[in-house]
Amino acid sequence: MNKPHIVILGAGYGGLMTTIKLQKSLGTNEAKITLVNKNDYHYQTTWLHENAAGTLHHDRTRIPLRDIIKMNRVNFVQDTVVSIKPEEKLVKLETTTLNYDVLVVGLGFEPATFGIPGLEEHAFTIDNIDSARMLRQHLAYNFSLYHNEKEKKSARLNIVIGGGGFTGVEFVGELANRIPELCEEYDIEKSLVRIINIEGSPTVLPGFEPQLVEYAMNSLESRGIEFITGAMLKECKPKSIVYEKDNKLEEIPTMTTVWTAGVRANEIVEHSGLETNRGKVEVRDDMRAPDYDDVFVIGDCALIIDSNTGRSYPPTAQTAVRQSSIVARNVKAFIRDEKLEAFKPKKLGTVASLGNNDAIGVVFNNQKIFGWKATVMKKIIDNRYLFKLGGFGLLLKKGKFNIFY
Amino acid sequence: MNKPHIVILGAGYGGLMTTIKLQKSLGTNEAKITLVNKNDYHYQTTWLHENAAGTLHHDRTRIPLRDIIKMNRVNFVQDTVVSIKPEEKLVKLETTTLNYDVLVVGLGFEPATFGIPGLEEHAFTIDNIDSARMLRQHLAYNFSLYHNEKEKKSARLNIVIGGGGFTGVEFVGELANRIPELCEEYDIEKSLVRIINIEGSPTVLPGFEPQLVEYAMNSLESRGIEFITGAMLKECKPKSIVYEKDNKLEEIPTMTTVWTAGVRANEIVEHSGLETNRGKVEVRDDMRAPDYDDVFVIGDCALIIDSNTGRSYPPTAQTAVRQSSIVARNVKAFIRDEKLEAFKPKKLGTVASLGNNDAIGVVFNNQKIFGWKATVMKKIIDNRYLFKLGGFGLLLKKGKFNIFY
Repeated sequence: MNKPHIVILGAGYGGLMTTIKLQKSLGTNEAKITLVNKNDYHYQTTWLHENAAGTLHHDRTRIPLRDIIKMNRVNFVQDTVVSIKPEEKLVKLETTTLNYDVLVVGLGFEPATFGIPGLEEHAFTIDNIDSARMLRQHLAYNFSLYHNEKEKKSARLNIVIGGGGFTGVEFVGELANRIPELCEEYDIEKSLVRIINIEGSPTVLPGFEPQLVEYAMNSLESRGIEFITGAMLKECKPKSIVYEKDNKLEEIPTMTTVWTAGVRANEIVEHSGLETNRGKVEVRDDMRAPDYDDVFVIGDCALIIDSNTGRSYPPTAQTAVRQSSIVARNVKAFIRDEKLEAFKPKKLGTVASLGNNDAIGVVFNNQKIFGWKATVMKKIIDNRYLFKLGGFGLLLKKGKFNIFY
Repeated sequence: MNKPHIVILGAGYGGLMTTIKLQKSLGTNEAKITLVNKNDYHYQTTWLHENAAGTLHHDRTRIPLRDIIKMNRVNFVQDTVVSIKPEEKLVKLETTTLNYDVLVVGLGFEPATFGIPGLEEHAFTIDNIDSARMLRQHLAYNFSLYHNEKEKKSARLNIVIGGGGFTGVEFVGELANRIPELCEEYDIEKSLVRIINIEGSPTVLPGFEPQLVEYAMNSLESRGIEFITGAMLKECKPKSIVYEKDNKLEEIPTMTTVWTAGVRANEIVEHSGLETNRGKVEVRDDMRAPDYDDVFVIGDCALIIDSNTGRSYPPTAQTAVRQSSIVARNVKAFIRDEKLEAFKPKKLGTVASLGNNDAIGVVFNNQKIFGWKATVMKKIIDNRYLFKLGGFGLLLKKGKFNIFY
């Protein structure tokens, strides 16, 4: 009899942690494990804003898969998923096709621009290593051009961030650190640079408590960030951005618009033939797709509704990692014909960094923290993940140990 | 009676060395010295190709004037020269006007594109700190964009250098060092990158002996540089360059054309009312303009014809520095009403670097050198200049001491 074939799509937080847990817990003769990923590395999505600002090199953020995966145990296929055919139990890749007995879909998110004109063509996003380092270079390039033009263009020095959510706020925090360096590098007056965050809600960081939001905005404003709240982006042009506030249209000259206000699940999921809700698979409590017993969905592609509020749990890295324990266990149970367990979503603590060794967060039983304590907590969270992923060796290599400054 | 006012335009090799010599040799009550320069720093034009390639930071190449000039002795005016009116003994700057009793014009060179269509709009040049660091960023930016586009564009990875003279050859030598780093940084196959040098003459480095030229071309070709000689650039478009060779037009897709094949004296000289020849002032042997006894011209703005060959001496940094001794002495003689001396041009040794610790050159009595010996000689020349400029302190700060690797 053939060994069952477990195919895992995506080496993000969910897919990779599932792979690691399966390679540890399954016997060599029990199953064949295949991991499919576009790149030969994993990256920490939650650190990309630092790569994009230029405060952390992207090689700190990415980890070669060969450093984490046992390549003799796991069959690694570097390829891009084209489509999933659950009724045929196969996955089409760009160069080949894989048959599976059990599938784990962890294909992550992609930016969503909600049809706002020009965003897709002209705005930058922070969604992978390529886009993050391109944005870093774009910023520096515009600064380097500034003094080479007879007519100085403020559009080169205005940076507009659409979205005051987690990524938008963490990114402007890093920019507040980075911009003075760029100004020094290219002989540009700091006062000429504007960093403008535009958010639709009345405050940034919707979902955080008002006290923490106020702390965050004060901290960032004192370092030169401008917030325009209650405002909607209307159009992104090559050299400006248009937004609406109080029923009035305003335009800001800028060649750098960064769109952080929308993500959706990888589009492949919607076209997979799996039943979807808002582009995601609303999973059963054992993390399987509703209509296929052999398909698990994890991370940003999975939708879980909070039955108390009727709203979905936010897809975060921590949630994906927590889900991977249940998914790995249930995949094992499935091929062993054992009983599957339920994933219990819970509200996790969370910390948003503000750059400059400042942060805000909620930890444990809704306890609010801010300032350097929050930054320490943030680094502990980051380091814990690295330890889970690759043990002590990886932690030493990629960890953030500048705890006290 | 008023002290005579010596005004020196430009803090390049010639103007700055003249200023330093005058501040040392003239008594405080003997004359007022004013130095006018666009920037508050001097830079080593001969190092700019390294800044442009990204192998040396531009802050190594530039030196704050306050570190060299005695600001209590020399009146430094940071401004841009608009025009010279020798008949009125005045210089118009952007924000003010200066009257002089003695003028030293050391306004350097600017790129000349000889009317080749598109060069001025689309090609990069290596002529000052701003343009050099912009080119460095432009290269990196294109590499960072490469993987973000669905249709990969070879034009982002093709680098065309127009001109196989000193700057063109030294620049491709540095690129051969830098490109592998950029490839690593942006996950790009080295074999996808092309560095193409296009030169009108049958070989690069016209003027050097064939043996040295062959050595240089072999060295660079072995490191991946392509040479197209006997070819003329015909047009520079935003995404390609057109050249003619053997009466055929060829086109190379590129977003990076670097024009190193033409320089001219600063245009202000031609419009100054001073008599010019090919845009330069053909100076008397005491370095004065033919028609004004109180105007000295130095460096790239001065033309000196070799009476043996009928050709002009090439304007180099070394020549400008040599001229500054005579100019300073003659300025002093002029205000003291003493006899002026003649500048004796001579053919100086010269070394061209090829990157990767390789170089070729001619030193002393036409002795040919190449390889590491030439690179040592190059660094000695560079370091000697720094010592002349700012003594031991400046040498320690900015010198090139990696002599043996």
